[in-house]
Amino acid sequence: MSRIAYVDGVYRPHAEAAVHIEDRGYQFADGVYEVIAVRGGKLVDGALHLARLRRSLAELRIEDALADDPLKVVLREVVRRNGVANGIVYLQITRGIAPRDHGFPKSSRPILVVTARRSRPASPKLVEEGISIVTIPDIRWQRCDIKTISLVANVLGKQTAREAGAFEAWMVDSEGRVTEGTSTNAWIVTADNEIVTRGAENAILNGVTRQALISLLKRGGYKFVERAFTVAEAKGAREAFLTSTTSDLLPVVSIDGRPVANGVPGLLTQKLRDDYLAHVAEST
Amino acid sequence: MSRIAYVDGVYRPHAEAAVHIEDRGYQFADGVYEVIAVRGGKLVDGALHLARLRRSLAELRIEDALADDPLKVVLREVVRRNGVANGIVYLQITRGIAPRDHGFPKSSRPILVVTARRSRPASPKLVEEGISIVTIPDIRWQRCDIKTISLVANVLGKQTAREAGAFEAWMVDSEGRVTEGTSTNAWIVTADNEIVTRGAENAILNGVTRQALISLLKRGGYKFVERAFTVAEAKGAREAFLTSTTSDLLPVVSIDGRPVANGVPGLLTQKLRDDYLAHVAEST
Repeated sequence: MSRIAYVDGVYRPHAEAAVHIEDRGYQFADGVYEVIAVRGGKLVDGALHLARLRRSLAELRIEDALADDPLKVVLREVVRRNGVANGIVYLQITRGIAPRDHGFPKSSRPILVVTARRSRPASPKLVEEGISIVTIPDIRWQRCDIKTISLVANVLGKQTAREAGAFEAWMVDSEGRVTEGTSTNAWIVTADNEIVTRGAENAILNGVTRQALISLLKRGGYKFVERAFTVAEAKGAREAFLTSTTSDLLPVVSIDGRPVANGVPGLLTQKLRDDYLAHVAEST
Repeated sequence: MSRIAYVDGVYRPHAEAAVHIEDRGYQFADGVYEVIAVRGGKLVDGALHLARLRRSLAELRIEDALADDPLKVVLREVVRRNGVANGIVYLQITRGIAPRDHGFPKSSRPILVVTARRSRPASPKLVEEGISIVTIPDIRWQRCDIKTISLVANVLGKQTAREAGAFEAWMVDSEGRVTEGTSTNAWIVTADNEIVTRGAENAILNGVTRQALISLLKRGGYKFVERAFTVAEAKGAREAFLTSTTSDLLPVVSIDGRPVANGVPGLLTQKLRDDYLAHVAEST
């Protein structure tokens, strides 16, 4: 089955899927995106993704993008045409095509691109053995709550992690506190079993897996608090983990080359992962 | 004459000039650009632009981009095919096409896009009457010295300026000091005729017009210093102006609705503009 992409109203073979060179996404990173997990052919937490998409569009004042209902039709159609039972669907909306000029164009209409691909959940090895993290300065802009395609700092950060042999880089603000990973949210479990993740203010993206897990924590009566934590606190934590759409929930067993606790995935982390996967199974 | 763009090795009609949806420029803003003025069919300070381009590419570790000599051939050819005697040539180089994944792809090659268009220099009205500025917080990332296409913060800033009826927004760091405009560099002249612009560290882009003007200032024996200045200092300055490739040097006569000095273009500013235009005329 050859891949199909949706580009501005048309389904095209992936290899021929193109956008104009004056699409403002290409010249100004003037656009937003979402990555939605697909399990059993269905979107995981689609409503949360679409709500966040609307917020991102509103923050950039990109108007007249395709509404939720027709957008859902396109997302499902791209999933179907690509035969994706398990994988991801990616969507991107830019401000549109206009002669290059920084300010908003007087007339342009948003361009929607959607792709889907099969992928496996995180490998059992990563789940069983846990993953390692390096920490780097967070040099990004001050509106990381908007899910823009302006991702060059995240690209450089992820590459730093890879070259250090780590799965992810946790970014650290000027006060020594972790903001988030380059494409994941960061969590720790304290000595008294309190589950901690940074509050969803301007410094982080409010991950959908993060939001779903928080709902589960609240419903499950866990000790949970949203607050910033330092790198030192993370290194001395009882457990640590990350969440994201593509990796669900993965145990962090090493930070900057030092083991977290005894260097194996934490028990609470494993339980939360099971809880999260049960939520995914129920909701799809 | 219909417009022609260069896209990855091929000259195409502008309307059909497209890039793949998985170009990393479109998905991650993973690329750099330059805008070069064309006067009398020739590139203005082309060598300075190409030197800065190489630096930007090196900082993002984008390797194997087209070398200077063949790149110059392409730039001149795009200028020629579009019949641009006076205007600009735009070039953009991205890391290339690869399945979406934050880290650098194992194999991809840079994609070069070049366009050119005719344009007039800044209108005589702007030169004679001066322009107005608003100030806004600088919320951008911490590597503004790299000329990346990751420009969404600049887009929002320029739009704020437009809606306030201003020509440009000057961005202000957390210590109240001006960094630069959203697409221009910021300058003031102090009470004792010292010409001041912020040093070219990570917080600003080292503008080519800025660089050229600094050379002229040094050669001309002007009192000149590179240092940060506050918004209050700018509002109380004897003169103020901005520089950029597309507007050369324009007098700033109003900041946040308050006149700079007596609210008319400064004499030194006018002289520097003449000096700069003479440099452009000589070098093309």
